[in-house]
Amino acid sequence: MNALGKHLLLELKDCDREVLNDLEFLKGMLSAAASEAGATVLGESFHQFSPQGVSGAVIIAESHLFIHTWPECGYAAVDIFTCGNSVKPEKAAQKLIKELGAKSHSILEIKRGILNTD
Amino acid sequence: MNALGKHLLLELKDCDREVLNDLEFLKGMLSAAASEAGATVLGESFHQFSPQGVSGAVIIAESHLFIHTWPECGYAAVDIFTCGNSVKPEKAAQKLIKELGAKSHSILEIKRGILNTD
Repeated sequence: MNALGKHLLLELKDCDREVLNDLEFLKGMLSAAASEAGATVLGESFHQFSPQGVSGAVIIAESHLFIHTWPECGYAAVDIFTCGNSVKPEKAAQKLIKELGAKSHSILEIKRGILNTD
Repeated sequence: MNALGKHLLLELKDCDREVLNDLEFLKGMLSAAASEAGATVLGESFHQFSPQGVSGAVIIAESHLFIHTWPECGYAAVDIFTCGNSVKPEKAAQKLIKELGAKSHSILEIKRGILNTD
């Protein structure tokens, strides 16, 4: 079975609520997590919501990272989508769990692009 | 069961290969798909790969859309992540399937942010 990409969907709960509303911190952290996984950052787009919440994407040469935060719930949804074998998305996931102070989390891994090779 | 977001993961196969490598077309189409779903576009980031392939994110007030294309495989991975009840992500999905000329596809729906309310 040949898959083009690996997609990690993180559910991060009971996080540090102040951190979840700090756009500059989240922007730097997502890029740092990408680098820690061995990925190359190509572009990004972030948005601060009012009264609270941040959405942000980092495009990497090997696909993307995404975060949406709900500070009022202490919750963040994070996606880490990578392709190729040189990148280690699990390293980015562990950094994010730690930096957001998530007291509980789950990670769902989905293979993307499973193509017939006939 | 209360979920903050609905996440559609689209696997689009046997697509029009020229379209999959056309950054400007994909950028316009992803924004148009967001609008058709009733979402409000806030920002975007796209990247054209060499020799082929495009990655792009559109941040919407209700979360995000993402596309990664592999023209050489006729394949695209698309994510449509929305929150709230006013947006209809299925409409965006149908538009993308049609515009990319996908001859086969699958859609996986995942609830995000299922929180305990106690």
